[in-house]
Amino acid sequence: MRAGPSQEDIRRHNLGALLRHVHLGGPISRAELTSRMGLNRSTIMALTSDLTAAGLVREELPRETGRAGRPSLVVRPESARVYVFAFDVGPDRLAVARVGLGGVILDRRETTRERGKFVLDELTGALSGFARQMRRKTRDDTVCVGAAAAVSGGVRKADGVVRFSPNLLAEEIPFGEELGRRLGLGLPVSVGNDANLGALAEHSRGVGAAVRDLIYLHGDVGIGGGIIAGGHLLGGHDGYGGEVGHMVVNPGGRACGCGSHGCLEAEVGERALLEAAGRIGPGQHGRDAVRAVVEAADRGDIGAQDALKKVGDWLGLGVANLVNIFNPEMVIFGGILREIYLGSAARVRSQLALHAMAPQRERLRLRTASLGDAAPLVGAAELAFANVLADPLEVLARANA
Amino acid sequence: MRAGPSQEDIRRHNLGALLRHVHLGGPISRAELTSRMGLNRSTIMALTSDLTAAGLVREELPRETGRAGRPSLVVRPESARVYVFAFDVGPDRLAVARVGLGGVILDRRETTRERGKFVLDELTGALSGFARQMRRKTRDDTVCVGAAAAVSGGVRKADGVVRFSPNLLAEEIPFGEELGRRLGLGLPVSVGNDANLGALAEHSRGVGAAVRDLIYLHGDVGIGGGIIAGGHLLGGHDGYGGEVGHMVVNPGGRACGCGSHGCLEAEVGERALLEAAGRIGPGQHGRDAVRAVVEAADRGDIGAQDALKKVGDWLGLGVANLVNIFNPEMVIFGGILREIYLGSAARVRSQLALHAMAPQRERLRLRTASLGDAAPLVGAAELAFANVLADPLEVLARANA
Repeated sequence: MRAGPSQEDIRRHNLGALLRHVHLGGPISRAELTSRMGLNRSTIMALTSDLTAAGLVREELPRETGRAGRPSLVVRPESARVYVFAFDVGPDRLAVARVGLGGVILDRRETTRERGKFVLDELTGALSGFARQMRRKTRDDTVCVGAAAAVSGGVRKADGVVRFSPNLLAEEIPFGEELGRRLGLGLPVSVGNDANLGALAEHSRGVGAAVRDLIYLHGDVGIGGGIIAGGHLLGGHDGYGGEVGHMVVNPGGRACGCGSHGCLEAEVGERALLEAAGRIGPGQHGRDAVRAVVEAADRGDIGAQDALKKVGDWLGLGVANLVNIFNPEMVIFGGILREIYLGSAARVRSQLALHAMAPQRERLRLRTASLGDAAPLVGAAELAFANVLADPLEVLARANA
Repeated sequence: MRAGPSQEDIRRHNLGALLRHVHLGGPISRAELTSRMGLNRSTIMALTSDLTAAGLVREELPRETGRAGRPSLVVRPESARVYVFAFDVGPDRLAVARVGLGGVILDRRETTRERGKFVLDELTGALSGFARQMRRKTRDDTVCVGAAAAVSGGVRKADGVVRFSPNLLAEEIPFGEELGRRLGLGLPVSVGNDANLGALAEHSRGVGAAVRDLIYLHGDVGIGGGIIAGGHLLGGHDGYGGEVGHMVVNPGGRACGCGSHGCLEAEVGERALLEAAGRIGPGQHGRDAVRAVVEAADRGDIGAQDALKKVGDWLGLGVANLVNIFNPEMVIFGGILREIYLGSAARVRSQLALHAMAPQRERLRLRTASLGDAAPLVGAAELAFANVLADPLEVLARANA
């Protein structure tokens, strides 16, 4: 119940809204902006001219109009000039990308890591090292306007501390603060849960674009989730919302890393599938091992088929619960859940028919993630761009200072 | 990504915001409004004077200031003059209230009904009959600005049709439209799920006031839920969000009215408790029967104690799942779940400790509903007031026309 906005607030809002159109939708004509934003032509011209002067967008004649008369100028994001750093700290790999305004991945480094302890110093050292390498290759007129990291764990909203990360074996890690210090860019590093950021990515640029109510399920070693409700990421009171992997679907079932039993993660995760398929032993982990089970099932391997059926049933029950609770428009399967879902879609659907209420599921779409492994990285970039979209000129002025 | 607001939008926003302060917070001085809304004194004066002229608020000298100098005028809602009709259609009873601006229940009628078929004609006849009785008793200068109904069932967001209502045995009922016709006030009747509206009520005026992330669980014949996430009611894609009663907690467990097995509703609802306590037979249903079990357990009845333990364990598991998924600040138990929770709080808490992740539960508060059986009615009134709070002068002008 705050007061109404001032003229300055309105201008900032409009600048951000225009920049968001260009950032998410790509090059767009002034005429189209006028119609989509419901503002008059002179206001659009003033806004684009401010953003152009700040070096955030540029205006160009369209290549081909096919129409008579003076063509409307096209507004493009300055993707090569304005960028953010996005980081992804997964259980098996580290990835860093330099992402230009408009969501263009300009440069990207990746390395595998051994599963295990989260050594803050080593991690931030490796990540900032990659970032420095990339920066050395940029032109002088480029400007970094933000940085954000995706972490497979729970991130406290209040201060960005990684509060728990069963698969990283870490607790209470001031990760963003430390990475920001190592980067030395004078920028804070926002931190988010990888599945939450994956949801944001699929919602912004993936299969869930324009979908206001979606659930993104990400399988890795564990199962994470990100929920977009009414167009907003569900964070919860402290930022730990979306931990659907620890919903108990099978009371008294398989032991889970969290200490409970029968969690979705315990029944559907990588280990559950590989053990059910009798594929245990050295080297039997990761995406390739999961793919091998699905491929074996395709070839008619009964053991692999049974394992997929079992895991697919639990996945379907978990999805049915979420559908009853959220009434989403779309459920998206990412990470290893993409493969598991594709290998067990019939079982998932039949569980949905059994356990989800008809009105909740009749308009539901089940989809696989379209951004693949890049989803958390893309989501981290969106998180990093949030500030510049909220107040374009101020953030640019600070970055250029 | 709409355009920024016009001056007229800002004025409308500010009028609504001021009226919302008075409606939810009660009488408040102009000085306090100035400070809370961050607007200057002359703007506040202009806004209150507009609302006063429309007959929505009145300004009075405070009774006692205890301070020297000219006291700041106090702005009060015109509760006796501006009102809405709120309806609650439960499985066992019908309730109608005339609720004044500020949330004052001015008049209320209630009747029990036999469980069973939803006869649209009889229901809307009874409800509109009560409303007419109440209207005959109002003064000439009163004005009805809205109407809304709480229904125990799923309500389609797009058109307010009651899509399913297992406990009312109804499907595809154009309830709001029909009730609006029978009322003959020229006003549309908004319709919402009773547990959703209960959540809204506890969030607006109950134990969850100022809590932005809460889950309200309502037990009646079935178990309903309402979720406030980030300050907003979670509706889902079609409006069926919050059906937590059909989350499966015990696969292969007790048969549920929805066709599935082991739903929270099947394991924790009225029938589950009464059957576990061996209290089946004629007359063994409703709130009194549930209370009798809790009271017997208090007196040392082993059968009743065991029944409460069993039901409390499933309730705790369900709550743990929701806590992992939502990371709420508060879970509120209403309807018969109030009694069941009070009789089994230790079991609920121990299940939470087992199955909810520590960061998710460490700041969690478990509470009983503070509005009691009136919650859906209070929530329906808030739904009915939503229009007048969004555009006070326009809605008043229409209502007076």
